[in-house]
Amino acid sequence: MTPLNAQWRLAARPLGVPKPSDWEYVEEPVPEPADGQCLVKLEYLSLDPAMRGWMNEGRSYVPPVEIGEVMRAGGLGRVVESRHPDYGAGELVSGVFGVQQYALSDGKGVQRVDPTLAPAPVYLGTLGMTGLTAYFGLLDIGRPQPGQTVVVSGAAGAVGSVAGQIARINGCRVVGIAGGPEKCEWITEELGFDAAIDYKRGDLRAQLREQTPDGVDVYFDNVGGETLDEVLRRLARGARVVICGAISQYCAEQPPKGPANYMQLLVMRASMTGFLVFDFAERYPEGIAQLGQWLASGELRSREDVVTGGLERFPEAFLMLFRGENTGKLILQLTEAAA
Amino acid sequence: MTPLNAQWRLAARPLGVPKPSDWEYVEEPVPEPADGQCLVKLEYLSLDPAMRGWMNEGRSYVPPVEIGEVMRAGGLGRVVESRHPDYGAGELVSGVFGVQQYALSDGKGVQRVDPTLAPAPVYLGTLGMTGLTAYFGLLDIGRPQPGQTVVVSGAAGAVGSVAGQIARINGCRVVGIAGGPEKCEWITEELGFDAAIDYKRGDLRAQLREQTPDGVDVYFDNVGGETLDEVLRRLARGARVVICGAISQYCAEQPPKGPANYMQLLVMRASMTGFLVFDFAERYPEGIAQLGQWLASGELRSREDVVTGGLERFPEAFLMLFRGENTGKLILQLTEAAA
Repeated sequence: MTPLNAQWRLAARPLGVPKPSDWEYVEEPVPEPADGQCLVKLEYLSLDPAMRGWMNEGRSYVPPVEIGEVMRAGGLGRVVESRHPDYGAGELVSGVFGVQQYALSDGKGVQRVDPTLAPAPVYLGTLGMTGLTAYFGLLDIGRPQPGQTVVVSGAAGAVGSVAGQIARINGCRVVGIAGGPEKCEWITEELGFDAAIDYKRGDLRAQLREQTPDGVDVYFDNVGGETLDEVLRRLARGARVVICGAISQYCAEQPPKGPANYMQLLVMRASMTGFLVFDFAERYPEGIAQLGQWLASGELRSREDVVTGGLERFPEAFLMLFRGENTGKLILQLTEAAA
Repeated sequence: MTPLNAQWRLAARPLGVPKPSDWEYVEEPVPEPADGQCLVKLEYLSLDPAMRGWMNEGRSYVPPVEIGEVMRAGGLGRVVESRHPDYGAGELVSGVFGVQQYALSDGKGVQRVDPTLAPAPVYLGTLGMTGLTAYFGLLDIGRPQPGQTVVVSGAAGAVGSVAGQIARINGCRVVGIAGGPEKCEWITEELGFDAAIDYKRGDLRAQLREQTPDGVDVYFDNVGGETLDEVLRRLARGARVVICGAISQYCAEQPPKGPANYMQLLVMRASMTGFLVFDFAERYPEGIAQLGQWLASGELRSREDVVTGGLERFPEAFLMLFRGENTGKLILQLTEAAA
């Protein structure tokens, strides 16, 4: 019997929150690698808010996923067959393999993974694009100085939890904004944030005022919307706002709400800067080495929120991101073995 | 008969567009300078959009003008009596003297003016805070490179007209956004902008697309609102958005509209940065020297829109700014002599 490759292909461009029917579950024969290709059997899928943007038409930093195309996603798996000079059968690799069980790869963007240094899922999170996004976004764009106040939204999410810890390691006062007491307790008790703001408790303005008495020097924004607007009111002079994401707006059916308080950038001689981790590709080795060292020393903690049940659960697992149901890096496990 | 000092004092905090009754016209005896002070008889008043912000309560880069206080404004006048060591009677000076005929000054922020180098009103415009704002905002915050595309809004206004010319002098393609055919003709025919966009003609998006085929590398924004949002859609990779002002929003009765397309900052790895000219005070001599040299060589043209009729006309003259009725620097002449 020919083994089958299960895939989720984009079936429709969602308006607002995606529905399971926006993808189509397809099974086709597992392909054969051509010369220069390897075949990867995926074990873990990275679930990221940015994937929602890839489903939209229009100008962005990568082309949209086309209708009928396998949904784009990062993943981690094992080379099962190879006609590629650099990757041999049995090796563990990460890359943008798509939402499918098997992927052909020409090696572009593929990283070798060493599971003896960290559990495999960590390579999709803290030692992957997630950790690198936090590392370069916070340090290169945010440029925090010791003693400064750094506010991170989406602080219990994959990127935010790492960004906040890097700020702490760099001697900053770190305030995380997260939803619910459990996440808030996790970032303060486990991750060493100085304070947490539970936006679900309401009166974000008063909570921010209380936790940032000297204003905000760096704001690492993953959520946008009202949270961004409220933090703008608290900027300190010369503040840097790092635009990493805007998860509160990705599923909005209306055009996104812009930050009405953006003129605080003028009042406070502040900047708001967007970035993409891909632009730092040449420095990935530096980032991975530093993140790995912090992980090894225990200064940095990594948490993966691994959903089991296999590829079929992709649509529902993906939506957890937009309901704030994950803590740390959301990962879909594709193997039946325990994580 | 004791000479009288006419003043406009703030009477009420306006909601939206100021009314004449938001100020009170007062006459009081001309004060006597104390030791260390000089008395300035004002000849020209600088009318600036920022003055609208100074009428509001709340946190900003300067304290608000208090109710009952003389309205704050820059001006230029002659020292008529002096007990100040640095300024003698007869000297022409500029400074923040307020909306009044006579002002006492302790010399703080006062600049000596040489009317043999340029007509006096130019020292409130291109050779004053206006020109310096354009100079440092464009060059230090915008950092345009030769060959890049620079878009300036409020391009026929005091700051915009200078910023656009500095971009042209620096070898950029300069596109100005202004209201009406006369202003558009002025900036292209007289000031050497490469293109003008008349926002009153409608379809700003299509006009921008046509005039910025390679995208926008630097956007020098004086207006905010819809214009900012539309230019964000045109940003080139690594673009710099300079937030100099937001005149379209200063008289809004609703909370200002934020730039809904701000996530283009992420897509294009772009920044949006606010600034205040005051932070460049140590470099004013450099700016004035350069602006003066460009003026002298004819590379830079300065236009002052001088309203006559004296101090009594302040409220109506000020409102011209918000109706887009001025071209170049709006100045109220306080003397009866011809400008």
